[in-house]
Amino acid sequence: MTILAGIVVTGTEVLTGRVVDRNGPWCSEQLRELGVEHQSTVVVGDRPADILAALRWFEAQGCSLIITSGGLGPTADDLTATVVGEFQGRAMVVDEPLHVRITEILRRLTARWPNVDQDAIALGNLKQATIPEGATILEPIGTAPGLVVPSVGDGPTVVVLPGPPSELIPMWQVAAASEPFRSAIEGSAAIDQSMLRLFGIPESEIAATMRDAVDAGVDLDALEITTCLRRGEIEIVTRFAPEKTDVYEQFASFVAARHADTLFSTDGSTIDEQFATLLKGPPLLSLAVAESCTGGLVAARLTERPGASEYLRGGIVAYSNAAKVSLAHVAPQMIETNGAVSEEVAVALAEGARTALGADLGIGVTGIAGPDGGSEDKPVGLVWCAASLGGDRLAVRKLQLPGSRQVIRDRTTTVVLHLAASLLGSES
Amino acid sequence: MTILAGIVVTGTEVLTGRVVDRNGPWCSEQLRELGVEHQSTVVVGDRPADILAALRWFEAQGCSLIITSGGLGPTADDLTATVVGEFQGRAMVVDEPLHVRITEILRRLTARWPNVDQDAIALGNLKQATIPEGATILEPIGTAPGLVVPSVGDGPTVVVLPGPPSELIPMWQVAAASEPFRSAIEGSAAIDQSMLRLFGIPESEIAATMRDAVDAGVDLDALEITTCLRRGEIEIVTRFAPEKTDVYEQFASFVAARHADTLFSTDGSTIDEQFATLLKGPPLLSLAVAESCTGGLVAARLTERPGASEYLRGGIVAYSNAAKVSLAHVAPQMIETNGAVSEEVAVALAEGARTALGADLGIGVTGIAGPDGGSEDKPVGLVWCAASLGGDRLAVRKLQLPGSRQVIRDRTTTVVLHLAASLLGSES
Repeated sequence: MTILAGIVVTGTEVLTGRVVDRNGPWCSEQLRELGVEHQSTVVVGDRPADILAALRWFEAQGCSLIITSGGLGPTADDLTATVVGEFQGRAMVVDEPLHVRITEILRRLTARWPNVDQDAIALGNLKQATIPEGATILEPIGTAPGLVVPSVGDGPTVVVLPGPPSELIPMWQVAAASEPFRSAIEGSAAIDQSMLRLFGIPESEIAATMRDAVDAGVDLDALEITTCLRRGEIEIVTRFAPEKTDVYEQFASFVAARHADTLFSTDGSTIDEQFATLLKGPPLLSLAVAESCTGGLVAARLTERPGASEYLRGGIVAYSNAAKVSLAHVAPQMIETNGAVSEEVAVALAEGARTALGADLGIGVTGIAGPDGGSEDKPVGLVWCAASLGGDRLAVRKLQLPGSRQVIRDRTTTVVLHLAASLLGSES
Repeated sequence: MTILAGIVVTGTEVLTGRVVDRNGPWCSEQLRELGVEHQSTVVVGDRPADILAALRWFEAQGCSLIITSGGLGPTADDLTATVVGEFQGRAMVVDEPLHVRITEILRRLTARWPNVDQDAIALGNLKQATIPEGATILEPIGTAPGLVVPSVGDGPTVVVLPGPPSELIPMWQVAAASEPFRSAIEGSAAIDQSMLRLFGIPESEIAATMRDAVDAGVDLDALEITTCLRRGEIEIVTRFAPEKTDVYEQFASFVAARHADTLFSTDGSTIDEQFATLLKGPPLLSLAVAESCTGGLVAARLTERPGASEYLRGGIVAYSNAAKVSLAHVAPQMIETNGAVSEEVAVALAEGARTALGADLGIGVTGIAGPDGGSEDKPVGLVWCAASLGGDRLAVRKLQLPGSRQVIRDRTTTVVLHLAASLLGSES
């Protein structure tokens, strides 16, 4: 039985793009794990009529569950609870025990602001304790409570969550365990999802492979397959009913046989995870980076991972030629002879990072991210990447990337991880 | 006259969050500049019925214009053009001249893939040249044409754009200049938008200021004000009809008078822009960074800006103590005595970056981003930031940040830019 759900993301700052929505995608993944079909996400501004229209649309589409995020703050433009109350035909009432609990949270929070306006705080506090009658309260993580608001009649149950992901995420589990949430999704059946990742082929090749799989008798109609090009990699995501696992296995084997050289992940792992695993060994290998056009992005991507200090010694952002010489010990004559963007300098940066930081593996990147600085000989998008384990244990790659400064910089970080991982892989 | 528009973002990869949507927000801003009211954005997967439902919903809401992004690729799950054709009651036809032009583009593109499947390419090509009869063609930037598809009757005009922002953005201008687009938004009136940015106060203070502004006689009902906390800064965005500019000026002056110490931007400029302007002088000041817990993010943020090489010498990612000592010349005894996360080491990193790279201004960052590595004395979220122009021309700040590893790292980059900019500002 298919249970449908809709997500309403509120906030003019999200609608107009000043804030990137992380809640819609996160909730979507949670719904999938519960076997609930996520119909769509509506992003609306802080206008009550638009929030109400979105709730009514999901009801008309047959959704049993609606998730809202945002609009629970203390300011006057935060109106989600009131709108949901109206939608569900429930009066708004002050919950006194909740009021007391929020007051206590605020007393602690505002202790660090010496000159805070206590009247303003009290007003916001009362607003946040005013909820639709009969709603299940989800205890505040910040100052805003979440709510699970059942319909008075047959309509959808509405789960009202705060906007900050740090509050929404821990509140989700409590919401999902609540009685009205459970009964709204009763009868849902879990859907499995698997992902394949490939690096270094065009998307049209996957389309051809899928047609050939059908010709070879794989029942692709039993699978929901989406492909997407992301940060220079192709992701093939397949959703399927657990009883169709064998069909998925056939499809995955077909892809693996056809694209053995470019398929690098069949278990959902990212190149970042795979590279970290290779470094952790055994034997444990230490790493150092010297990067020019990426300006710190390679190091930043490596240090996104908790525990990166286990293998990462450090990095050099060799943005100027002076920095290449003084920190990464690139010979000035080499830069003069070959130019800062050259195979020789990329290798010297990798070597320089290794030796300056006493690491096993060195990564070097130099290129032209644009929009200026290109020439006929060396156009914007030209990037040299190198990974070195010392001596001739070396991998080098030349890129000519299309796109904006941001795309060129970001795409380079992906390529350099693949290059370094394949050097380690070829040695093990 | 209010002209309403809706945006439909298609793609299961966007709905489920594997790809972050940039198109909805970008188109929203373009609509605002044209004086069109953006009602909401619907994000749907690659299911034709859901795309159709979203189009019908916007029609029912009274939208004169609908923008779609995505679903124009060569694979079988890309169906937007067909669905829009059905919605507009127009037959799908192959446009032969377009077919020839796409063939030519593909011939050039696939030259670099030696073993590409030409039959697969040809099939995708024919699909991309099949369009609703009577639609205006927007020439492909990649391989997918965009479309402006007028309603046969009174309904909305639909603008069909490709998913990759690098294709959608240049295509927008052509779409907006087309006759059916112009006539769909005829009678719209431009809306102005202004932004104030504050750093270092809680959002509830702004709520109080707004109430006081009303009490002082400022007609806030004439303005649409939204406040949002973003990367540690508060943004107050106000939209207003051009004839209400004087009301906005009153409001902005009221905020400026109340929050002189925390209001840092009244012209939309970011702290990144302001810091770059301060560095460019005259006199031009050079910059170097040594960062530990941010692991390259400060340098990466500085090098996001084209032309950063004018002032940025380079950076040191001093992730290990060895790197702090060898690259940033921090004394090992200092680390032993005070710990790597300490005021002394932050200052030594700033000084070390300055001297190692021969820069005027040095920035130092050291902290505990978590999730592990915290102690009672030095919990996760403790960060020391320093900016130094040499000697006692120094600014230091201690932070205790809440949130995840990602939030702590990101927030630190904002604080350190404010710290360094205020040091430069106080000297000029």
